[in-house]
Amino acid sequence: MSTEIFTIFMIMMSFGAEASGPSPATDLLNRIFQNIDLRQNDFVQTLKEWLAVQSDSSDPQLRGEVIRMMGIAAKRIQDLGATAQLVNPNMTEMIGGRQVPLPPVLLANLGDDPKKPTVCFYGHVDVQPAKKEDGWTTDPYTLTEINGNLHGRGASDDKGPVLAWINAVDTLNTLKQDIPVNMKFIIEGMEETGSGGLEEIIKKYNHFFSDIDYIVISDNSWISRKPALIYGSRGNAYFFVEVKGSERDLHSGSFGGITHEAMSDLIALLDSLVDPSGRILIPGIYDDVATLTEEEQQLYDKIEFDMEEQKNKIGVKKFVQSTKVETLLHLWCYPSLSIHGIEGAFYGPGTKTVIPSKVIGKFSIRQVPNMNLSAVKEKVSKHLENVFAKRNSPNKLTVTMPIGALPWVTDAKELQYEAARRAVAKVFGIVPDMIKDGSTIPIAKTFQTVTQKKIMMLPIGGSDDGEHSQNEKISRDNYIQGTKLFAAFFLELAELHQKKQKYSNQINKD
Amino acid sequence: MSTEIFTIFMIMMSFGAEASGPSPATDLLNRIFQNIDLRQNDFVQTLKEWLAVQSDSSDPQLRGEVIRMMGIAAKRIQDLGATAQLVNPNMTEMIGGRQVPLPPVLLANLGDDPKKPTVCFYGHVDVQPAKKEDGWTTDPYTLTEINGNLHGRGASDDKGPVLAWINAVDTLNTLKQDIPVNMKFIIEGMEETGSGGLEEIIKKYNHFFSDIDYIVISDNSWISRKPALIYGSRGNAYFFVEVKGSERDLHSGSFGGITHEAMSDLIALLDSLVDPSGRILIPGIYDDVATLTEEEQQLYDKIEFDMEEQKNKIGVKKFVQSTKVETLLHLWCYPSLSIHGIEGAFYGPGTKTVIPSKVIGKFSIRQVPNMNLSAVKEKVSKHLENVFAKRNSPNKLTVTMPIGALPWVTDAKELQYEAARRAVAKVFGIVPDMIKDGSTIPIAKTFQTVTQKKIMMLPIGGSDDGEHSQNEKISRDNYIQGTKLFAAFFLELAELHQKKQKYSNQINKD
Repeated sequence: MSTEIFTIFMIMMSFGAEASGPSPATDLLNRIFQNIDLRQNDFVQTLKEWLAVQSDSSDPQLRGEVIRMMGIAAKRIQDLGATAQLVNPNMTEMIGGRQVPLPPVLLANLGDDPKKPTVCFYGHVDVQPAKKEDGWTTDPYTLTEINGNLHGRGASDDKGPVLAWINAVDTLNTLKQDIPVNMKFIIEGMEETGSGGLEEIIKKYNHFFSDIDYIVISDNSWISRKPALIYGSRGNAYFFVEVKGSERDLHSGSFGGITHEAMSDLIALLDSLVDPSGRILIPGIYDDVATLTEEEQQLYDKIEFDMEEQKNKIGVKKFVQSTKVETLLHLWCYPSLSIHGIEGAFYGPGTKTVIPSKVIGKFSIRQVPNMNLSAVKEKVSKHLENVFAKRNSPNKLTVTMPIGALPWVTDAKELQYEAARRAVAKVFGIVPDMIKDGSTIPIAKTFQTVTQKKIMMLPIGGSDDGEHSQNEKISRDNYIQGTKLFAAFFLELAELHQKKQKYSNQINKD
Repeated sequence: MSTEIFTIFMIMMSFGAEASGPSPATDLLNRIFQNIDLRQNDFVQTLKEWLAVQSDSSDPQLRGEVIRMMGIAAKRIQDLGATAQLVNPNMTEMIGGRQVPLPPVLLANLGDDPKKPTVCFYGHVDVQPAKKEDGWTTDPYTLTEINGNLHGRGASDDKGPVLAWINAVDTLNTLKQDIPVNMKFIIEGMEETGSGGLEEIIKKYNHFFSDIDYIVISDNSWISRKPALIYGSRGNAYFFVEVKGSERDLHSGSFGGITHEAMSDLIALLDSLVDPSGRILIPGIYDDVATLTEEEQQLYDKIEFDMEEQKNKIGVKKFVQSTKVETLLHLWCYPSLSIHGIEGAFYGPGTKTVIPSKVIGKFSIRQVPNMNLSAVKEKVSKHLENVFAKRNSPNKLTVTMPIGALPWVTDAKELQYEAARRAVAKVFGIVPDMIKDGSTIPIAKTFQTVTQKKIMMLPIGGSDDGEHSQNEKISRDNYIQGTKLFAAFFLELAELHQKKQKYSNQINKD
């Protein structure tokens, strides 16, 4: 089907069920929703069991727990009737001079009816670090329900969404209903530390992806209380700026005043990057940023995003921008530069009178279309070298870019988005916001580039879930309604996909 | 004796032994030196035993070892015939929410002959942290002799010098020689972390200090291969610059570009402090710096300080200043500002995409006469507030000064310095360099202020001992010649002191 004809088809679809035949039997959907409501405590219980596993991928000591968690997920997916395999990457991770194994990646199939569309779900079951003493008010590895919120590390990121998808399939099984789509799963255990080993597996198991029609990622959240679909995310270019002075750390009493201190150089370099309003000062950095379309700006005006609520959430008096649209544009359509910290300098509490010998400043620039990573790297390096040259310092400057992740964006008019919009309407009775994510989900770009499949991000987490933070939670409502959303999505996707096929066949016959 | 008469006396003394009667019997000194040479392996063995104690005062887990070390030192000093007491401070230290006891301070007396001068020795037996994996090529707690150097944590800072003083007394005992001075000892176990509890003890036991004539501190080193006496040290004003943004750390993807980041503010503040040549940019900071006398500048010209050797030692291509005199002036007579690090930002290896919510920049300004600590604090605060105000940031700035230590300087023409000069001449056959120390030895200022006694720093460590660094050492030569130096100093001090008394009595009679 040509793009043009597909667009006509999608416009017809958008007139709603009446214009394109009956929707999936309302009574089936009602039975599904009732069954989910009925079994919600079972679903919460399974989430509790999953959250109890300390699958923190950043701690090599807990690597065994990540591997155990992968096994639990595999077993659960097999219980749905799927064929699951745990595939070990060849790579290992070197930590502190010893090799730490990477956990396996889970690949699973359920159904292979050629008449059905095939949808692959991506999620992860590893978590960010969490300790009670970080300021949690409940034990991070014991699901605790408070005021309708299910607290625990991984509740929203990403064990809750993974289980919601599984629950949705399980519900159809329980009701002895045919699953209207072929299902694939790709579940990993290293997402929180950069998905080590995943790209290798995606490339190696390309046959696994060959018959997939859609990939759905559910690993982020809404930006308000309103459900949302995500059609783009920023990339990231991470920089290390190393300044090396003396061969070893010096005492500031014995050498202060006579040596060119690496820290003074680094501080001056870091201070040359952004102005107080956050505008990046690196010459030419905005050159390739895609011009904003009026269409996109108009879209933003309708998005639910309460500036006051957002400010209260993070505890700031004001944002840099004063309007909602400007704020969203700066979060999604413009690059931003953040200085994260310095390695090699004194960082502890108290006082230490050291002149650090070698310091590495760390900052990153979020990438938007159509920025070019190698051009960004060149501009940043050139700028820093110029600033450094003016200081006339005998120290040594080295600039590297350890991470270069491209932004991801897709066409929100694609069929999977329409199916998701309809599913949201069925569950929540509203039209979802079409949003982007200011952060980087490299796996989206990897799937897009390597598999060339249609991708969608379908989040079920709330805007106040506090992923990566203390007291992470998912609300019981988001978890259970999210389960319904996924089930409804299967039905809507199957229906739209089959109609598209039929329409396409007809057009081709005519 | 008036200052004027005392000056005349000292001028007479400086004409040497001939002008003021016979020096202490050369054969006694020879016998002392021979005995020290003879027993040098015993002295090294005791140092080995002391270095084996992991008396790292910065590690609360090792506090017991510091306390054990204090007991070993007390026992050793008692064996000299002294009366020793271990005095516990009232203070405790709070570390990670639990109270950790402070080690006791050792106060000891040996002799109370009213005809003899009383000299008090200050040293410490705690050490800086040391781990093999920090890059030591030998076990830091096992004294290892390589090419005439005795390697081990604390060898030079400060167990070696403490033992050298003890060895000197012990030698006189062994030779059944009367010790020509009354001896006191004040030995502590918290020097490396700021001498917690010591000032309290000094104030409480003021009677211990009442009959002391001279305090000798041996806790630093020469600045070349040439022996040196130290008559001044810089003070230090340490600053915390806290910038608080959001209530919690934020994800740079989700909030980068829309929030006023605390790190950008802090970096700009830190970048306003010094220019690339190290000149401090805080308005008025040099106003109170004492004008250099021509006499002092001329003194510096004769001091042995090899710029090339110093540069090679720390591995830098060049210093800020090109001449020796300029370098020494900047190390001893001018303030310097060093940026030590940032608390609250990302400091680990690898990448983390955090926008830190609260960051504390840490820097310190070395103080010289006649800088005024409260004026410095005011100028620094005002400057930072001005820079911050121009940024128009909604974040919160707080500037504090947790450490304010005054510089210390004394008159190098005092009697104890003359005695030390003579002792150096006896042991090394040369005139020592009169130097200052760019770093801060707060205990010197505390002794000066609280006890009002005459103070001298008499170092025996070499300029390449690497205190606080990997592979710390004292050379066997410095340790053994240092023992001789202390013994010769006792004799010279007693002789000069008694002559001064006699001369003084005569003047008063006339």
